[in-house]
Amino acid sequence: MTTVPTPQSSRPGDLSPEEFRAAAHAAVDWIADYLEHPERVPVRSRARPGDVTSALPASPPKHGEPLADMMADFERIILPGITHWNHPSFFAYFANSSTYPGILGELLTAGLNANAMMWITSPAATELEQVTLDWLRQLMGLQDGWFGQITDTASVSTFYALAAAREALGLDIRARGMAARHDLPTLRVYCSEHAHSSIDKAVIALGLGHDNLIKIPADEHFRMRPEALREAIATDLALGHLPMAVVPCIGTTSTTSVDPVPEIVRIAKEFDCWVHVDTAYAGPAAIVPELRYLLDGVEGADSMVVNPHKWLFTPVDCSVLYTKRPDALRQAFALLPEYLVTKDQDQVVNLMDYGIQLGRRFRALKLWMVLRAFGADGLAERIRFHCELARDFAGMVHFEGGWELTAPVPLSLVCFRYAPAHASEDAIASMNAAIMERVNAEGRAYLSHTKLNGKYTLRLAIGNIRTDRSHIEQVWSELRAAATAVAG
Amino acid sequence: MTTVPTPQSSRPGDLSPEEFRAAAHAAVDWIADYLEHPERVPVRSRARPGDVTSALPASPPKHGEPLADMMADFERIILPGITHWNHPSFFAYFANSSTYPGILGELLTAGLNANAMMWITSPAATELEQVTLDWLRQLMGLQDGWFGQITDTASVSTFYALAAAREALGLDIRARGMAARHDLPTLRVYCSEHAHSSIDKAVIALGLGHDNLIKIPADEHFRMRPEALREAIATDLALGHLPMAVVPCIGTTSTTSVDPVPEIVRIAKEFDCWVHVDTAYAGPAAIVPELRYLLDGVEGADSMVVNPHKWLFTPVDCSVLYTKRPDALRQAFALLPEYLVTKDQDQVVNLMDYGIQLGRRFRALKLWMVLRAFGADGLAERIRFHCELARDFAGMVHFEGGWELTAPVPLSLVCFRYAPAHASEDAIASMNAAIMERVNAEGRAYLSHTKLNGKYTLRLAIGNIRTDRSHIEQVWSELRAAATAVAG
Repeated sequence: MTTVPTPQSSRPGDLSPEEFRAAAHAAVDWIADYLEHPERVPVRSRARPGDVTSALPASPPKHGEPLADMMADFERIILPGITHWNHPSFFAYFANSSTYPGILGELLTAGLNANAMMWITSPAATELEQVTLDWLRQLMGLQDGWFGQITDTASVSTFYALAAAREALGLDIRARGMAARHDLPTLRVYCSEHAHSSIDKAVIALGLGHDNLIKIPADEHFRMRPEALREAIATDLALGHLPMAVVPCIGTTSTTSVDPVPEIVRIAKEFDCWVHVDTAYAGPAAIVPELRYLLDGVEGADSMVVNPHKWLFTPVDCSVLYTKRPDALRQAFALLPEYLVTKDQDQVVNLMDYGIQLGRRFRALKLWMVLRAFGADGLAERIRFHCELARDFAGMVHFEGGWELTAPVPLSLVCFRYAPAHASEDAIASMNAAIMERVNAEGRAYLSHTKLNGKYTLRLAIGNIRTDRSHIEQVWSELRAAATAVAG
Repeated sequence: MTTVPTPQSSRPGDLSPEEFRAAAHAAVDWIADYLEHPERVPVRSRARPGDVTSALPASPPKHGEPLADMMADFERIILPGITHWNHPSFFAYFANSSTYPGILGELLTAGLNANAMMWITSPAATELEQVTLDWLRQLMGLQDGWFGQITDTASVSTFYALAAAREALGLDIRARGMAARHDLPTLRVYCSEHAHSSIDKAVIALGLGHDNLIKIPADEHFRMRPEALREAIATDLALGHLPMAVVPCIGTTSTTSVDPVPEIVRIAKEFDCWVHVDTAYAGPAAIVPELRYLLDGVEGADSMVVNPHKWLFTPVDCSVLYTKRPDALRQAFALLPEYLVTKDQDQVVNLMDYGIQLGRRFRALKLWMVLRAFGADGLAERIRFHCELARDFAGMVHFEGGWELTAPVPLSLVCFRYAPAHASEDAIASMNAAIMERVNAEGRAYLSHTKLNGKYTLRLAIGNIRTDRSHIEQVWSELRAAATAVAG
């Protein structure tokens, strides 16, 4: 049977290629202009809640609209609602940046729309991911034997790692679950009191129970105390609990403190615990030869997360989960329904087998381009420079009366605050909150805060590739002016 | 204290903007050329395992390299390893496509590098996500009252939904976990035997146990049998298990069969089960007025996943999780460490509170652009056309001696096979596998397969925006030629 062919012109296909070329070239120029002058816009958006919503139609259009209209609305409606992570004076959370090679990679990824779920669904996507992550491993000075995969965020990387740790217990939790089992003890996970909330979320999601994440006290420099870890494990064993995993952090969120990984690994291994190292932010610093010591002890761990979308100049999202035990991840996650069976499946790596996501965007392309565009030396030089800037800023704070540093500065984050003599802790907290809000509202810099042993503390996180000394001096000047205004 | 300013020129900043402009404009033109002539390349990559790896250096470069070199290597090394999801004769899995507005959105997203983790970290990213998902809800004809969020994949959306269902039981699993509790029964989840593997992975990851995912038998049209669901729940209750959630599917992966959602919802609600509807592929079809009935009954569900990166012309990744019970998601996931406290947190939606990911790429931008560029009518027209093409192809198969349809064709997927008279089931399976491999190896079309009640079946999935009748006729001609060759 044959059908009468419909003329091809009747196909309701894609939009006009000319329109795309015009809009996309305009977007490239807009991005280039934007990144050449990132200081033209306020760092933190000045939008009030609902501003963007009320500027948009409440319902979708019935008919298609030109791409040029969208570019215009992007500038008119969206842009004022953007907080500019690309601004060189973005010092909040962990600063990051979109760089030219990363944007180029994202553009090509969007054009290809390849899916790295299986090897055959784009062999280059899977193989480039493996090669690029092996490059990154070498850059960080780690030995061979780490299997890498890209996920969207450190939260997912850590979640996968702890899922593998759970399955590696050999208790068949995959098949039988954890509820209503008389043979199953409580499973315990250990991290420092300064660990990131992603560890908490992973433990909760896995059904281990937030109560079973044991926060080990830190020392006066915010590092996990190994003897406290040993005590906690011993106590748990005495109570009949099963120690499952320890998650030390190299570069905590509040202060970038570094847990003593070699000692933690020794203790964890003594009790057969999985060790997952969270170095989402600080990992790339090991590319700098004189900072390589940061990863000391990591070779003894089972898994590690490092985020190129934080301090490695790669656009979000790009987190990397490394593991020495990929089989445990497969054991936790691999599933092969008939509709995904392929003839070559045993000769290749199918990355869908190492996590829950089936669809996998081709994220390796941008990371490959970033590593190539900067090279080992270029990456090291930029990261080193950020650490220098942080030390300089710390120096400014240290020598200024009425201000104090509240944590050591091992990397590119400075914890500090205004603390005039005789002010109460409550007064200091409200003054610093007011100072921060004043500076942030000005729009020339953006900081965030934390609390350290109950002390309200400002954080200056340096990580944007366009940050230079002038931005550090500018924010310091604004902070002092704000302090004068607030205190006066 | 002041430091001596370093001249700005000493800053090891970003690369040359001119180099970026040149490379990005070239990439735009490359993408436009590629998408105007997507048939120039073989659909399925011809790379052999290791081809891409061996063409790449084993170690990263020491010094930075020009972006132009990367564009050249992209074409020379990466491209031959790409399986072209943009090819109009990509009929495997669920076909999808990258469209001009989607690519434009991804480009701007990469340039901004905004993070929608909290409202303040880019108000427009959070608000545009809410508005765009409300547009999509309206397009699909759903009532008000659905809270939407974008995730990367349906696997994560479903995982979140079931995590919320688990917490909504009120058993404090978040805090106490599931192991070593005497008060906790086995928690059971129900889906059809044709449900997607993402349900299995979610149940495994949540620690519920794969054994506790009950696959309900389907009828002869591959739809969950409601009376079998009722029986399974009753049996479980008699055994002391706790029915937690039911996951009906609208558009299963193997055949796009549609479970009877209204009846399933009625039964589930009788037993206080959470209902999560998996309509990752088929949901957008409800934009077509005469297909709106597909979502009948969904209003009674608790959550639903629909993937714009499948049949809504949006580049991967973009999955949408809708729920009527956002508080349950918050209850399952929200956590507020001090370093994420903001002054306005109670007046705004902070999307980090509804899942495990903290970092959230600005994915709403591309979806907003797709919805605007095509408009309600344009989207409906294209989806309707794909269904027409599928019916036409089904007609060709139905009227051809020796071939048979193996499932109904409610949407844009055709299940069929070569089944000459008197051939055994084994012979049919190996002939069809050989036919598929022959066609796929030719490079002009790409199909995948499944098994239905043990019967090996080919799948022709139509979903690429550039597919027209000529591609359907071409693949049909290739299939018949391959059958002749294989059988002869």
